[in-house]
Amino acid sequence: MEPETSADAGAEALPAPPRASLVSTRRNAASVVHLKGQWFIAATSRELRAHPLATTLFGTPIVLFRDRDGKPGALVDRCPHRNVPLSLGHVEADGTLRCAYHGWRFDTEGACTFIPSLTERSDARSRRAHALPTLEQQGFVWVYSSPSQGGDETPDTVPHRFAYQGKRGYSTVAQVVEAEGTMYSTIENALDVPHTAFLHRGLFRSASRGITITAKVHRTKDRVVAEYVGEPRPPGLIARILSPSGGIVTHFDRFLLPSIAQVEYSIGTENHLLVDSVMTPIDDFRTRIYAVVSFRSRLPHFLIRPFIKPLALRVFKQDAFILKRQTETIQLFGGEQFASTEIDVLGRHIWRLLKQAERGDVHGSDESGEVKLVV
Amino acid sequence: MEPETSADAGAEALPAPPRASLVSTRRNAASVVHLKGQWFIAATSRELRAHPLATTLFGTPIVLFRDRDGKPGALVDRCPHRNVPLSLGHVEADGTLRCAYHGWRFDTEGACTFIPSLTERSDARSRRAHALPTLEQQGFVWVYSSPSQGGDETPDTVPHRFAYQGKRGYSTVAQVVEAEGTMYSTIENALDVPHTAFLHRGLFRSASRGITITAKVHRTKDRVVAEYVGEPRPPGLIARILSPSGGIVTHFDRFLLPSIAQVEYSIGTENHLLVDSVMTPIDDFRTRIYAVVSFRSRLPHFLIRPFIKPLALRVFKQDAFILKRQTETIQLFGGEQFASTEIDVLGRHIWRLLKQAERGDVHGSDESGEVKLVV
Amino acid sequence: MEPETSADAGAEALPAPPRASLVSTRRNAASVVHLKGQWFIAATSRELRAHPLATTLFGTPIVLFRDRDGKPGALVDRCPHRNVPLSLGHVEADGTLRCAYHGWRFDTEGACTFIPSLTERSDARSRRAHALPTLEQQGFVWVYSSPSQGGDETPDTVPHRFAYQGKRGYSTVAQVVEAEGTMYSTIENALDVPHTAFLHRGLFRSASRGITITAKVHRTKDRVVAEYVGEPRPPGLIARILSPSGGIVTHFDRFLLPSIAQVEYSIGTENHLLVDSVMTPIDDFRTRIYAVVSFRSRLPHFLIRPFIKPLALRVFKQDAFILKRQTETIQLFGGEQFASTEIDVLGRHIWRLLKQAERGDVHGSDESGEVKLVV
Repeated sequence: MEPETSADAGAEALPAPPRASLVSTRRNAASVVHLKGQWFIAATSRELRAHPLATTLFGTPIVLFRDRDGKPGALVDRCPHRNVPLSLGHVEADGTLRCAYHGWRFDTEGACTFIPSLTERSDARSRRAHALPTLEQQGFVWVYSSPSQGGDETPDTVPHRFAYQGKRGYSTVAQVVEAEGTMYSTIENALDVPHTAFLHRGLFRSASRGITITAKVHRTKDRVVAEYVGEPRPPGLIARILSPSGGIVTHFDRFLLPSIAQVEYSIGTENHLLVDSVMTPIDDFRTRIYAVVSFRSRLPHFLIRPFIKPLALRVFKQDAFILKRQTETIQLFGGEQFASTEIDVLGRHIWRLLKQAERGDVHGSDESGEVKLVV
Repeated sequence: MEPETSADAGAEALPAPPRASLVSTRRNAASVVHLKGQWFIAATSRELRAHPLATTLFGTPIVLFRDRDGKPGALVDRCPHRNVPLSLGHVEADGTLRCAYHGWRFDTEGACTFIPSLTERSDARSRRAHALPTLEQQGFVWVYSSPSQGGDETPDTVPHRFAYQGKRGYSTVAQVVEAEGTMYSTIENALDVPHTAFLHRGLFRSASRGITITAKVHRTKDRVVAEYVGEPRPPGLIARILSPSGGIVTHFDRFLLPSIAQVEYSIGTENHLLVDSVMTPIDDFRTRIYAVVSFRSRLPHFLIRPFIKPLALRVFKQDAFILKRQTETIQLFGGEQFASTEIDVLGRHIWRLLKQAERGDVHGSDESGEVKLVV
Repeated sequence: MEPETSADAGAEALPAPPRASLVSTRRNAASVVHLKGQWFIAATSRELRAHPLATTLFGTPIVLFRDRDGKPGALVDRCPHRNVPLSLGHVEADGTLRCAYHGWRFDTEGACTFIPSLTERSDARSRRAHALPTLEQQGFVWVYSSPSQGGDETPDTVPHRFAYQGKRGYSTVAQVVEAEGTMYSTIENALDVPHTAFLHRGLFRSASRGITITAKVHRTKDRVVAEYVGEPRPPGLIARILSPSGGIVTHFDRFLLPSIAQVEYSIGTENHLLVDSVMTPIDDFRTRIYAVVSFRSRLPHFLIRPFIKPLALRVFKQDAFILKRQTETIQLFGGEQFASTEIDVLGRHIWRLLKQAERGDVHGSDESGEVKLVV
């Protein structure tokens, strides 16, 4: 008797991961951008000492190290010889980075300066490591997202500066955190007003007070700014700390290309707060946030300072939780499917600017408008 | 000197996961079906209380919650706004489910009833959540596997009823377990006679006694039934508990669309056992089993009852182990390759019915036959 | 008001794993070969006793068991019936392997000799398991990498023999280890001289002594040999143990198809060391190494013996670490990109021989040459 096959005969496609099959989602679509030729923070100055430091930018492993003069360099973290991470190696006395496997040495420009056992000099172009232009500024090491392999492209732009860091009358606090979300989602979250009343209930705003405010939005070629007009002094904890005496609120939210979310608050004439969240895309779905908070207040700063980090971290923990669950859901459904309303004030502008930067378009069109929100 | 490339020159395709390369398997084929328009158990009534409950059906995250009247509803567990799981939210006093991120509210039909901060009413169709028809019955919450987005499709079928639950003279025990196997493999396993002598050695049957029995098989449009004729009273533990006095054995195995494996035993006139295993496809390779055991016996039920769950769980543990290893092997080889014989009595009928249901074909052809087995 | 989509409108491709996007790598290329019709070690004789033994070859699960006479057999570890691993089963008194699920029995040739409950005999070809020719020799169980399904192909080759195992005056030590690297990378690593001064600093060679030596390379149809001429006695620990009295060094590195890396050292006339590293490709990126070390020395062997394993394992641990990081980097970049120099003496020859064997080409062309290295 010949055996019969049962399930085998008409067996179905074997899907690798579990995928949501009850609803149709436009597959393989998510708010991911890959930006070339832009400056991103790769590390704090303090993190980069005598040993090579491994990090990641747009999914690409990067190794940072300092040359003989202490000037930082960044190479793609893969030895061109046998593809071992260069970050496993050591920095030599001459400021070159030596691979742990066969001892090849590279300078901060990516040139292979020495190959042990080889009788001839190494000068072949294929032995170069990819180097990223690097710049140290205000306590951060910035890298440029276009690696070269021996070319002499010099960036014609400079990294963002933190305007009030070190300025008289201001205190500055910095913090590094990481979110499991696309860079777009993380930026939108940082500049989104309506979620604060729900996700951060009690920290910023509580139940709606039924006040209608206006967001004046203005987009230019490299940024979008929302000015919130008519905003009452928030009743939450942060506001009470910042401004015990009350006062008129001025509130700007800004997105600056390539990846800076900026929130600026003034309450009265003497309280001023600027939060720069500089995003580094670790990979498509992980974003590191270098947050720099500068403030000026009529309160003694030593009283405010201890509250900034714990409060910021508590807010961030809630945001990071939501972003992670958002990312999981998007991956499970195989793509994003967002429905926006007009009170998603900055989202579509941020996306437009990011896509424009991804295309390398430096012009962009201006746009202005107003949105009303009930808070 | 120009460097030579060694392995690089003719390097080979990079396979993501380890795959069995020594034998050829028809790739990407497994007994997976996706059934639309069918009722599946999503939870027990007891599991669904004041908080939203997250579960999964055909790989699709589902959130269950009760409205103001306690009536259950089911939504695809993804907020249409920013794709955060709705199950992270809360059920409001008005019986709507509020998203944890921006506070959007949804009723059990999926309508978005409120968007905080928005000055206009929310009535846009794109803001609806996908809703699944839901029905509570006999202690279980059933959902219909065709989500709607605002349509008014009403299922013209009703869920399976447990025939002896609550019936005079019967006791009923329920248990929920989960197997790492396709729904097809899990159903076939539940209705497969030959494996019991090996995998469950000593629990049902031991070594073969050389008795030839007949399985009369009859398939109609929505089910297949095997009646086993000539079966001796099993010598195993379960049989001794069920029927200390012996008697004629009547044994039916049934598969009822979409996912019910039913085993019915009568020994003598007073012992009667019906096991309904209702399968819920969590995803392509995980199946949840809601097992409902109803029995009537000449023995006092309080003597039998304590044995049912431990025995059933012991049997299930062995089945779950084998199904998991089967799934692992199938995934490693990249697909199924089954060789069946005539004593795989119900397998090919179950598969045919499942494929028929997947196509939405409600007619099907009848088939009858007989198979001889040595037990 | 109709909602606007923000990110959704122009959303981008959703990449499954994080991938290096800043540099372009020729995707999906790695030094992976699949060799048919070759002998590989599947287990040591000692590992294979009364119970079936599960292992893997080229990603394919294999089960080893001994028949009634103790002769080993190897089957692809998947029951043809319902694709459960046969290694979950038991070896019967008649030397057949019985599947744990339905009790099907298989002999070492893969024939299905018995199906419980079936009224007819099992003789269908589709019920056969794939069998691999198996041979036990010098304490190892070798399998042939071309499974048959009932054919009678008999290999016309025999496995490699360990030349000095059991030979008068020699001691032999064996060790099994596993590396997370392709078979090619693991072989090249085992026969690579330049990396020893860096990765194994202090164990073999320390800083360069500036001596130029010559590697005479000769490739024939099934092997490539490098003879190192002018090599000074290494100053490292291994050399001191091996040859306290000094002497002329003879050093050969050999790759023998399909997977043997052989290192041979003579120091003076009485010290002789042969290390055979027989590689078994577990899957594309994992390689098991059966290392057999035979040595002869003027020192009492009981003094040397205790040092061999700890030293070898220390060296291997460093190699395994680098190979694992190499594999991770290659997978992250989506492929290999190696830049070689002439002092990567054997790499390109090993790759050529492996590709030749993969094509089934048994001829190959000879090649000879010389390379100078500074050590």
